[in-house]
Amino acid sequence: MKHYLTQDPWNIVEESFHRDYNEITESVMSIGNGRLGGRGSFEEKFSGKTMLGHYVAGVYYPDKTRVGWWKNGYPEYFAKVLNAANWIGIDIDIEYETLDLNTCEVRNFRRVLNMQEGYLERQFVARLKSGKEVEVNAKRFYSIVDDESGAIRYAIKPLNFDAKITITPYIDGAVRNRDANYDETFWDEVRKETAYGEAYIELRTRKTGFHVATGMCVEIEQGGEKVDYQSQPIKYEKYVANRITLDCREGQETVIYKYGVNLSSLNYDSDTLIKEAHKYIQRISRKGFDKMLFEQKQAWADKWKTNDIVIEGDVAAQQGIRFNIFQLNQTYTGEDERLNIGPKGFTGEKYGGSTYWDTEAYCLPFYLSTADQKVARNLLIYRYKQLGKAIENAQKLGFRAGAALYPMVTMNGEECHNEWEITFEEIHRNGAIAYAIFDYVRYTGDEQYLVDYGLEVLIAISRFWSQRVNWSTKKEKYVMLGVTGPNEYENNVNNNWYTNYIAAWTLRYTIEAVNKVKILDQEKYADLIDRIHFREEKEIEKATHIVDTMHFPFDEERQVYLQQDGFLDKELMPVSDIPKGQRPINQNWSWDRILRSCFIKQADVLQGLYFFEHEHGHDFVRKNFDFYEPMTVHESSLSPCVHSILASSLGMKEKAYEMYLRTARLDLDDYNNDTEDGCHITSMAGTWLAVVKGFGGMRVGLELPKEQKEIVKKARKENKTEWVILPPIPQSINYQLVLRPYCPENWQSFSFKIRFRGALLDVITTQQNVTIHNFSKESITLCLYNEEVTIQPESEVTTPIPS
Amino acid sequence: MKHYLTQDPWNIVEESFHRDYNEITESVMSIGNGRLGGRGSFEEKFSGKTMLGHYVAGVYYPDKTRVGWWKNGYPEYFAKVLNAANWIGIDIDIEYETLDLNTCEVRNFRRVLNMQEGYLERQFVARLKSGKEVEVNAKRFYSIVDDESGAIRYAIKPLNFDAKITITPYIDGAVRNRDANYDETFWDEVRKETAYGEAYIELRTRKTGFHVATGMCVEIEQGGEKVDYQSQPIKYEKYVANRITLDCREGQETVIYKYGVNLSSLNYDSDTLIKEAHKYIQRISRKGFDKMLFEQKQAWADKWKTNDIVIEGDVAAQQGIRFNIFQLNQTYTGEDERLNIGPKGFTGEKYGGSTYWDTEAYCLPFYLSTADQKVARNLLIYRYKQLGKAIENAQKLGFRAGAALYPMVTMNGEECHNEWEITFEEIHRNGAIAYAIFDYVRYTGDEQYLVDYGLEVLIAISRFWSQRVNWSTKKEKYVMLGVTGPNEYENNVNNNWYTNYIAAWTLRYTIEAVNKVKILDQEKYADLIDRIHFREEKEIEKATHIVDTMHFPFDEERQVYLQQDGFLDKELMPVSDIPKGQRPINQNWSWDRILRSCFIKQADVLQGLYFFEHEHGHDFVRKNFDFYEPMTVHESSLSPCVHSILASSLGMKEKAYEMYLRTARLDLDDYNNDTEDGCHITSMAGTWLAVVKGFGGMRVGLELPKEQKEIVKKARKENKTEWVILPPIPQSINYQLVLRPYCPENWQSFSFKIRFRGALLDVITTQQNVTIHNFSKESITLCLYNEEVTIQPESEVTTPIPS
Repeated sequence: MKHYLTQDPWNIVEESFHRDYNEITESVMSIGNGRLGGRGSFEEKFSGKTMLGHYVAGVYYPDKTRVGWWKNGYPEYFAKVLNAANWIGIDIDIEYETLDLNTCEVRNFRRVLNMQEGYLERQFVARLKSGKEVEVNAKRFYSIVDDESGAIRYAIKPLNFDAKITITPYIDGAVRNRDANYDETFWDEVRKETAYGEAYIELRTRKTGFHVATGMCVEIEQGGEKVDYQSQPIKYEKYVANRITLDCREGQETVIYKYGVNLSSLNYDSDTLIKEAHKYIQRISRKGFDKMLFEQKQAWADKWKTNDIVIEGDVAAQQGIRFNIFQLNQTYTGEDERLNIGPKGFTGEKYGGSTYWDTEAYCLPFYLSTADQKVARNLLIYRYKQLGKAIENAQKLGFRAGAALYPMVTMNGEECHNEWEITFEEIHRNGAIAYAIFDYVRYTGDEQYLVDYGLEVLIAISRFWSQRVNWSTKKEKYVMLGVTGPNEYENNVNNNWYTNYIAAWTLRYTIEAVNKVKILDQEKYADLIDRIHFREEKEIEKATHIVDTMHFPFDEERQVYLQQDGFLDKELMPVSDIPKGQRPINQNWSWDRILRSCFIKQADVLQGLYFFEHEHGHDFVRKNFDFYEPMTVHESSLSPCVHSILASSLGMKEKAYEMYLRTARLDLDDYNNDTEDGCHITSMAGTWLAVVKGFGGMRVGLELPKEQKEIVKKARKENKTEWVILPPIPQSINYQLVLRPYCPENWQSFSFKIRFRGALLDVITTQQNVTIHNFSKESITLCLYNEEVTIQPESEVTTPIPS
Repeated sequence: MKHYLTQDPWNIVEESFHRDYNEITESVMSIGNGRLGGRGSFEEKFSGKTMLGHYVAGVYYPDKTRVGWWKNGYPEYFAKVLNAANWIGIDIDIEYETLDLNTCEVRNFRRVLNMQEGYLERQFVARLKSGKEVEVNAKRFYSIVDDESGAIRYAIKPLNFDAKITITPYIDGAVRNRDANYDETFWDEVRKETAYGEAYIELRTRKTGFHVATGMCVEIEQGGEKVDYQSQPIKYEKYVANRITLDCREGQETVIYKYGVNLSSLNYDSDTLIKEAHKYIQRISRKGFDKMLFEQKQAWADKWKTNDIVIEGDVAAQQGIRFNIFQLNQTYTGEDERLNIGPKGFTGEKYGGSTYWDTEAYCLPFYLSTADQKVARNLLIYRYKQLGKAIENAQKLGFRAGAALYPMVTMNGEECHNEWEITFEEIHRNGAIAYAIFDYVRYTGDEQYLVDYGLEVLIAISRFWSQRVNWSTKKEKYVMLGVTGPNEYENNVNNNWYTNYIAAWTLRYTIEAVNKVKILDQEKYADLIDRIHFREEKEIEKATHIVDTMHFPFDEERQVYLQQDGFLDKELMPVSDIPKGQRPINQNWSWDRILRSCFIKQADVLQGLYFFEHEHGHDFVRKNFDFYEPMTVHESSLSPCVHSILASSLGMKEKAYEMYLRTARLDLDDYNNDTEDGCHITSMAGTWLAVVKGFGGMRVGLELPKEQKEIVKKARKENKTEWVILPPIPQSINYQLVLRPYCPENWQSFSFKIRFRGALLDVITTQQNVTIHNFSKESITLCLYNEEVTIQPESEVTTPIPS
């Protein structure tokens, strides 16, 4: 844990330069616009600890897989997020000295990530070895309005001398990936051009053949006036620059405006890239830095209108949650359905790939509630477009007839992960993709999505599950052998409850979806089943048989689901019994010891009860929580949020807050000593969930027709722990927004904004009351503490919090 | 399968040059003497497919571990068998042409591995591009008498020209390991020297700092007379040579004698290495090639006297078994207890390490029966000396109080393997090391070994098992979670029967050994328990509790042990149901599919019933064989021999022969398409076992005191499937040689030689009779087809084979 960053509600502030932490700060202060992004490193040369990283979404390199022992079926490559050309560089030479904060005295240093307005700012005074002092003020952002560009305002002022200062703005494509498996370089140069104050370089990725043109143009002001300057073009291998020498006087500020663009062949014909880059840069430089920044601020203000969470009485928490929301919005905007949410976003390159099940399980609900419906929809469409690859992936593992297994890690739909117990066995991810469709349709009511895309994906996933289970003559049940559940501290287990449940649930939901689509659009349904050779009767019969006779490990005595077969053979003990100094166990225990222990890395049975809370009684969830929570070490950043949400829902407020704290400031405080590699982008969504679904108790609840309601009620009475098969629902189901907010003790109040089906609400919770403001032009009826409440357009209701 | 090698009872013969198979032939024709060895490659330059490999036993490099995803506990390095300096090289230049069989026409080519006499020979006529023809005849061997040296006789004769021929005998230390993880080189040069007709180079391994001096000396004969020659010394980086130019006349043979030595700092002070090498080479060159070869032949004749297996009526089988015996004797001689039996011996470098559980489970019985007792004893002492490392290894995995886990792969006792499911979980290897002590004592009667070394190892291994199990409150039994059994097509399973059984057996045997050692040498016992802090009462009490209440998965219906918990949840089907073209499954199925299938890589439950046949009824073994055999794919070369032996013992002669054939000519026929990497040395012992323990029915049987006999008899009657705890046996147990030979249908007869407690026997089995010849000066009483038979000194008995 590190506490060197200043706590502030809207800014991340580094006061005075922390050399040793520089790579951590660079991660935290990363900026991006969903299409481009980069780490918060310096424009001028820095010979100290730094990891330069500038990334272009969707551009990747298929790095040769590295394994110790090859297992049949491993993918040939691991798609790496590519460190692209460094476009921010501006070398500063003052007579014979180079400005380098590693070699000079630094004072008044301040680096600020302004989250409200979306830019990075840095100030300092540097005293060179010669005694010369300069003051620098630099501002940089990636524009979310002109989202293939960024701009820099770099102001430099001699404090105690007059001198010629040489300024060398450059683009450097000779970059390396720190995470490269064999230390290879990934880019080849295609062409480069320089002109007065401008420079362009076009690089091509090896193997994948993506072209990226990076361009810059430079303008200079002295004394507030644009000045003409002499510029000497420089070209090296993969490097272009303009060297500009200026007379600078004591006390006079020289301002360098550097505009950068990055255009890729994902969006342009690669033959025209440099031409287009030139046009683009002309356009933005004409617009100018100030106008660009003004637009940036407005765009961010718009985002915050529907995204912000305000916490009163706890600046650290306020800063933490805004940081998470800010980074999620920087990483993914939903503009382009070919993109997704990398585990490190634009803040680092570790782990590679851009898409994990984190997207569906953790991030989707955030975008569903805070962004336009199309944003979440594009996340679904991304998977829809990769269905063909998922089918190929399943084929490689021996599945047939259109069965799909979505990859563990991917860039273009192909599996990249190479660890058998994960790659081949952590197949519950397939269920999360089905669940995301359900989640989206439930939240938005967009049933047409099922017709157009959703059902096709659901059938393909269901086909996988139908083939993946096998009939156990011993148990007279369907079983699923050799899987890894969400708890990766168990490998190759049999009948992981979560996986079995989400598999059976997928089959159920697919049957429902078939029935629904048949009603909604008979013609499209006929086309679909013809195209994918869906043998309705036979496949549904098999699916129904599996749903009816799936094995779910269960302990009668404790009335809990068992994480997997044989779980009770373990020596059960609470995490608190682990001897001091032995945590985290993944750094202190050998892998086999972890595996045979009862300790749980991340929510597993509880992940299932979080997803399927609506299918289980409250008491039953509580029994499972009480059984599993004490054995959970939360050594995945994706774990505490689920426990926090369940704890909130079970009324265990202290536990909920404790769990919330585990990830609220994960990167800001470098909680796991790994933020220097980049931020934990996807787990940031988990913190948001802990606030909105946990403290806010936000759910989308089934408003069932009467007949169905009776069945559910009866099942609850009988304390049934498994689901209830409902008769087919002829019309669309009505889902309702549900809220049960309470304010954590340590806070005065908190508020969050959510969108729900066209409405925008602000939910403000104090220790006493909850106020819900409806910003929209229509009234909304929701369920607040089990009561139906209607809020008129553009008005609010306030209710005391029930004790 | 390839059949290009000529079948011959005593020789491996390649008639005409098979360029594409050259690396396979090089593996097969490897020669060695237990201390040095190398592949059967050419002396002269060869620009075609070749893998040069010359190895010095015990000299290794700790290559940086390569993994895809690091797991805590993985070793930092993997000890690699080192490709050492090439000492055999002799470049031949005829005017402006280099002799290179890849670029000239070759006729009358013949390469022969003479197994009877222990050398490699090669002849050919080469026609160069210029039309010049030369005849070459080369002989090479590693001396088993002067076991740090080798010698070459290389004769060259111009057939159609007179010319100056330049001969360059060299030593080249600039070699690479093909199996290097990061393509690094492993040797540094220390010094080099040349003299008239001599050259020396001393290299040092990086990191481990082994020094190896390689020396050569050259003599030349023309027309049968030793000639003086002009020699130009050549030195490059890691390379020394003498360039010699000779006038050669049509039809006249020029003979180059090249003597080589390899001395390592394992056996000499590294400061004196080159001096010692010089002395050594002086000595052997004075002895001369012919005398050295004569001694070699005699030494091999001595080995064959106690090793040979003669098969009449099947040349392929005859060649196969002699090849295996030959290679085993080349690989390990038992002279040096620091050495062991690498999986590829001196025939290649793949897999690295020198010691696997293969040594104890497969090789030990071969050396026990065919070599002096000290050879097998040295294999045991090797592990004894590494006990400290095994304790450290267990500590790294969290075990305490002197618990030892022997490594999966090692060179110096440290674990090298890096695949969690093997490294940390394939712990049954620990049991094999305990079993080897039992096996050795049973065979030799050397109970003093228990006193001096064995008990200490047994206690350390037992301590591991006692800590590795845990009490299952659910089962009210001890369980062992998260293991990989011998069948590596199951990973991280619970309660692998074989592992549980050998663990419990180790505890039982340790208790027996404690009681025995207390009787044999009270004083040494007291010293030992004091030194290792053995709390006799407490540790034995715990061990007894585990022995009494260990969980063994068992199927009541089928009356078979279950390979692991949950095995019956699998879809059971015979190997014959695997669709065509999908075998071997490890090349056609993804790993997860293999894991969840019922298919068994190698004997697992059956391995246990082979080791512990004497503790199980015949009918019971049969039931298990009938259950598991059809599901076994034998994709490990260590598997068929176990099935073959059991099939023989169950009277299933056809199955026994079928299984025997699976490995009898594994490398000679390149059965698995991988002999080019080197031969499967340790599995060669398996073939020997299939003949001697299988067809020969050789066992060592318990001659129990009367009281114990009754107990066992009773248990057999009751069809008890688990072991019987016998009351302590006060005196030494008498073990007896047991034989039940039968001759496979395809053979006219076979005979094998074995040593047993000072006796040397030849057991000759025809279709009708068995004749046992006792070569020793004392009579021996053995059990032949359940009858006690006494054979007088230096005489034989013949008995008809019972039908």
